Amino acid sequence: MVDSEGHPDGDEIALGSVLAALADPLRRQVVAELARAPGGTERTCASFGFPVSKATLTHHFRVLREAGLIRQVNRGNSRAACLRADDIEARLPGLLDLVAAEGGKK
Amino acid sequence: MVDSEGHPDGDEIALGSVLAALADPLRRQVVAELARAPGGTERTCASFGFPVSKATLTHHFRVLREAGLIRQVNRGNSRAACLRADDIEARLPGLLDLVAAEGGKK
Repeated sequence: MVDSEGHPDGDEIALGSVLAALADPLRRQVVAELARAPGGTERTCASFGFPVSKATLTHHFRVLREAGLIRQVNRGNSRAACLRADDIEARLPGLLDLVAAEGGKK
Repeated sequence: MVDSEGHPDGDEIALGSVLAALADPLRRQVVAELARAPGGTERTCASFGFPVSKATLTHHFRVLREAGLIRQVNRGNSRAACLRADDIEARLPGLLDLVAAEGGKK
């Protein structure tokens, strides 16, 4: 089931959607940074400092959210994203390590 | 280095290219079938029986080849593809298992 914000349940996370989400370098960087941060880290979209428009950023975060890679929650007047590390690890073991390792090499 | 046929060296296989290649369901199915076959299995593009044009098939196999997922070799009057399982496993450990497991659930 997908909730009203477009978050799929953990057991409905699909490899195809996750790979498509991670095929984009900006989205992969978001996941890599969250994967290397302490567990439960929440960050706003703007905190990543990407040189793209707000609409573009919103699009990329929606793709990540709908693939099940991140969860977005309202925090006062902004939205924060956190990695669904346990859900992804359960469905696709090892994938986050690969993404985090790549980001670390940059 | 990339050879004249577009095969990257094993150590130049990039996560982004591999994920983009695997984001497509047809290409993922090719990799899943090869990953589940005995090691060293060679198959022609046509043997997969996809209901797409020859040009489309050629495109998909080129993407797989340029990402480093498969190696294509001439065999008489046809071309055969085999999975670069060792190269992929060395660069991106566990990824082929994820793809093969998904294909097996269909």
